[in-house]
Amino acid sequence: MSNFALNCPLPIQQYPQILLAHGGGGKLMNQLIQQMFLPVFGDPRQIQHDAVTLNLSGKAIAFTTDSYVVHPLFFPGGDIGSIAVNGTVNDLAMAGAKPLYLSASFILEEGLAMETLWRVVRSMQQAATAANVQIVTGDTKVVDRGKGDGIYLNTAGVGILEHHLTIAPTSVQPGDAILINGDLGRHGIAIMAVREGLEFETTITSDCAPLAETVLQLLNAGIEIHCLRDLTRGGLASALNEIAVAAGVTLVVDETQIPVQEAVQGACEILGFDPLYVANEGRFVAFVPENAIDRALKIMGSEACVIGTVQAFSSGLVTLNSRIGANRILDMLSGEQLPRIC
Amino acid sequence: MSNFALNCPLPIQQYPQILLAHGGGGKLMNQLIQQMFLPVFGDPRQIQHDAVTLNLSGKAIAFTTDSYVVHPLFFPGGDIGSIAVNGTVNDLAMAGAKPLYLSASFILEEGLAMETLWRVVRSMQQAATAANVQIVTGDTKVVDRGKGDGIYLNTAGVGILEHHLTIAPTSVQPGDAILINGDLGRHGIAIMAVREGLEFETTITSDCAPLAETVLQLLNAGIEIHCLRDLTRGGLASALNEIAVAAGVTLVVDETQIPVQEAVQGACEILGFDPLYVANEGRFVAFVPENAIDRALKIMGSEACVIGTVQAFSSGLVTLNSRIGANRILDMLSGEQLPRIC
Repeated sequence: MSNFALNCPLPIQQYPQILLAHGGGGKLMNQLIQQMFLPVFGDPRQIQHDAVTLNLSGKAIAFTTDSYVVHPLFFPGGDIGSIAVNGTVNDLAMAGAKPLYLSASFILEEGLAMETLWRVVRSMQQAATAANVQIVTGDTKVVDRGKGDGIYLNTAGVGILEHHLTIAPTSVQPGDAILINGDLGRHGIAIMAVREGLEFETTITSDCAPLAETVLQLLNAGIEIHCLRDLTRGGLASALNEIAVAAGVTLVVDETQIPVQEAVQGACEILGFDPLYVANEGRFVAFVPENAIDRALKIMGSEACVIGTVQAFSSGLVTLNSRIGANRILDMLSGEQLPRIC
Repeated sequence: MSNFALNCPLPIQQYPQILLAHGGGGKLMNQLIQQMFLPVFGDPRQIQHDAVTLNLSGKAIAFTTDSYVVHPLFFPGGDIGSIAVNGTVNDLAMAGAKPLYLSASFILEEGLAMETLWRVVRSMQQAATAANVQIVTGDTKVVDRGKGDGIYLNTAGVGILEHHLTIAPTSVQPGDAILINGDLGRHGIAIMAVREGLEFETTITSDCAPLAETVLQLLNAGIEIHCLRDLTRGGLASALNEIAVAAGVTLVVDETQIPVQEAVQGACEILGFDPLYVANEGRFVAFVPENAIDRALKIMGSEACVIGTVQAFSSGLVTLNSRIGANRILDMLSGEQLPRIC
């Protein structure tokens, strides 16, 4: 162990190597961000939300990035191209921004079928059109055979903020309702099914979808949104834990209110997964004051519902009223449930 | 060959697979961009410069992205972290923008030494401080062992435009002088030397450096810059060809005026490379009117010099007055000279 390594706030002697879980959206990834990236790159408040909001001489913009390494490249309900567009659009939306422009940067593996790239490019364009954003700049790199996996794709996004709310965990208040826009777990299970060759009675399709339109409608309706978060890696449980800690509140969630399709529930039982930890690509939670619940649900669609409330200021805790009537602490994802789902 | 593939403007039957050269900055990469990405993603003018300039309700910003796959991760004069910061800063500078904010997105290979990541993170921060930009948002993905190569890194950048020039190939005029800010080829040869275990009498170090400060000084001095381009993949020859075609002009370059260090020239002769095609990470050309040459050279540093002129409108051609007194056409890089140099 060099002196250089000892200067790292993350205890390198304890974690000498990168594990798959460092990209899993759970505890290890959180630790990597908190103990390596944030201490070095600066202001912790700026990097912890889905997108950062920046002030460019009076004009507020949002800026975000995500790399996509989903395996396989194509799955029911989407592909790496549609995920790369929607995922970044959604990160901008979660900051309350109107997404405008995306970049697209490809890391291609030598030997990739040109037709595969073409399919992904077309899919990106369709997703961009549907989400009302433009892909305006890009980059292409090629790595030697065996040093990639077909296509890795990065999109960064720029949007504008046209409201004066602070949509962030710090705005969450006791009394707020926690709303969700639909059923959980389909994206992760869809990926898993293709990867493992599992067949269910009905094909489970990814929930991959752009969320910006819904968020903009909430804003236009004058709903005082306190916080938004999409439920990607680490699922609902990890997202709620991050918010609870950042806001310093206790969240109480009712398991019976959380929508999960029967096929997804069944698949989770077979595979030993908990749908509360499975990744989604078109699901988000919104924290709104109690008096805005009805209007918000109407905008968020027919599947939207209230799944819990913010109870009190605390050091950050999520408790679950479980299906069988017991209360338990809903912890952050520990380890890696399902690598490379986005 | 499916019907779907036949709809691609790039003849997939002729190029059924991605080759290393598709990322090499030469003809094949150009073809991929021109015949696949641009027809699908829209306005060709928006994607062809190093960074796109966008109008956000009255505020002009520049936006760019690059993924970095350099191998090895560390080399004399830099590493993947410093390249990822400087490369993106330089793309913003080439659009005449003041770089402000970067994103950082990591694709890590399972098993990567944590200390290696820490070194790269620290290097990024040092480069960001030196270039006066802030890394404000990020992402981390981990891919399975054998599906990456330690670290792939994407940075996207946002900057503001504080002038009213159109710095682009379309502004290039017959009579413009072509200026360069220093010697060519050190980055590519430094990488090659480490990769192949070559030793020269003196260590050749990469020229990796941020260029924004120089560009801002040119702008502040009121110099009417017509076009800027950094000389990365494909080197000087490919950059000049791209500009000649986009501007519809003939460029005449004098080989004896192009600075190349003796050690680099020697290494190129041994390796069979042409320094005009070797990648740089801190070199750029500036196209300025003749009356601005002296002031521009003074700002661009003691190694800066005039290497050629813009002769006439044409279909786009670069000719070289060679060292031995002959004239030849300087073509774009064909094939791949040196993969993964950035």
